[in-house]
Amino acid sequence: MSGSSQDPPANDSRTTVAELRELVRQFVAERDWQQFHTPKNLSMSLAIEAAELMEHFQWLTPEASRQIAGQPEKLVEVGEELADVLCYALALANELGLDVAAAVHDKMDKNRQKYPADEYRGRYGPEDASASPTADEA
Amino acid sequence: MSGSSQDPPANDSRTTVAELRELVRQFVAERDWQQFHTPKNLSMSLAIEAAELMEHFQWLTPEASRQIAGQPEKLVEVGEELADVLCYALALANELGLDVAAAVHDKMDKNRQKYPADEYRGRYGPEDASASPTADEA
Amino acid sequence: MSGSSQDPPANDSRTTVAELRELVRQFVAERDWQQFHTPKNLSMSLAIEAAELMEHFQWLTPEASRQIAGQPEKLVEVGEELADVLCYALALANELGLDVAAAVHDKMDKNRQKYPADEYRGRYGPEDASASPTADEA
Amino acid sequence: MSGSSQDPPANDSRTTVAELRELVRQFVAERDWQQFHTPKNLSMSLAIEAAELMEHFQWLTPEASRQIAGQPEKLVEVGEELADVLCYALALANELGLDVAAAVHDKMDKNRQKYPADEYRGRYGPEDASASPTADEA
Repeated sequence: MSGSSQDPPANDSRTTVAELRELVRQFVAERDWQQFHTPKNLSMSLAIEAAELMEHFQWLTPEASRQIAGQPEKLVEVGEELADVLCYALALANELGLDVAAAVHDKMDKNRQKYPADEYRGRYGPEDASASPTADEA
Repeated sequence: MSGSSQDPPANDSRTTVAELRELVRQFVAERDWQQFHTPKNLSMSLAIEAAELMEHFQWLTPEASRQIAGQPEKLVEVGEELADVLCYALALANELGLDVAAAVHDKMDKNRQKYPADEYRGRYGPEDASASPTADEA
Repeated sequence: MSGSSQDPPANDSRTTVAELRELVRQFVAERDWQQFHTPKNLSMSLAIEAAELMEHFQWLTPEASRQIAGQPEKLVEVGEELADVLCYALALANELGLDVAAAVHDKMDKNRQKYPADEYRGRYGPEDASASPTADEA
Repeated sequence: MSGSSQDPPANDSRTTVAELRELVRQFVAERDWQQFHTPKNLSMSLAIEAAELMEHFQWLTPEASRQIAGQPEKLVEVGEELADVLCYALALANELGLDVAAAVHDKMDKNRQKYPADEYRGRYGPEDASASPTADEA
């Protein structure tokens, strides 16, 4: 389904972030598009693609949005929008020289401290009064 | 800078997409947050984080936005927002069972056909009248 | 609650769009901010404020989002974000010289043709299989 | 160009916010769309339309984005997107029972206090080191 014909298809288990970044970098370089790829423009593009992704879920109930997982044609469409989001995210990382894996690891460390598992189990945030039974009893 | 203390810090060259997905999956599972992670909600979160990323470039000239690459403190802030975008993108992939690397490869194949390098070199799209010298002469 | 002290408070029934536009224009002019108010920048600002508005509903169920209407403090917060959206929308209209009321009327005319009431009653779009009166009876 | 055939065309000087709200309310009621118009869904719609508006300026230089003001066909397209943004903003105000004119007045009062004209003249925010000559000397 993807990759050049002689290679096995790409998948998340054997693809590094660097390989995806290189794919994007090459596509941009071949078209001489770095001139348009200012961080400002790329941040707009990312937000635009995020909105296109959101459009697929706009009028669905939360439950119906979960059912997309079992609808192959819809899933392909959603996958394309998600890919667009990721391509621009990686293009931005390329322009700024940001290491994506390190940034994600650092942010997750921060999130673990901001949202201790015991305190936030079953609660989406400080505003959420409903809590997991365990947390309630504490 | 990141990862558990005994591991070498994560970086894009040696981190697979699957590893980042697992990091997100575990964080969500530990907090019992799958209940909030409907694709609808995650698509909203992704768009919200994309807007927060964009906020860093909102009033900058395109040129000033490029200079962020050389401003370490700003770069950390932007990296955090980019990480947020990616974490929600991966959380969405987790919920929908989408393979990110395959989706990106497929979309890039499609983009290569939609935007042939010769035709779009130096032009951001069909509307862009300015064109590469070669394309102009053709 | 609003307006200068001697005036009756502004309300939608007696406030024209032009009056709101003038309020925004004056605020911008007094700060010499037209230089930042390129349509490009304003479109970013509008999208950013729309995301901040969305943030209030991000984790709520659809039903819980309706209940905001009866929660005065939350309503003030949401009202502020909505005001931000509108101020940037009006600032953009000011910069581009667009008449907002005419644009809304024109678009509603177009929407009435695109979504005939009989065909779309109870259906959010072509994808929504649930729903026309006829379908209800079936 | 707009409105029903016997009326003079709508314009910002003689159209109240309430009139635009009523136009939207009626359109929604005729299609029985209140059921889809949860504040959550409307906030998504607003963000999606804001992104579509932004798309017109995505790859333009700030200067080129200003020139849209003098390009009638582009202006019509941009006006349609701006109308979409406003229609959803008004639909949200309708659902929540928010007075838009009051909210805008209140927010502008707050903004005048947050950004005193003397301090912010020629500066887009606290981060902007460049300042108006007067402010510099003060």
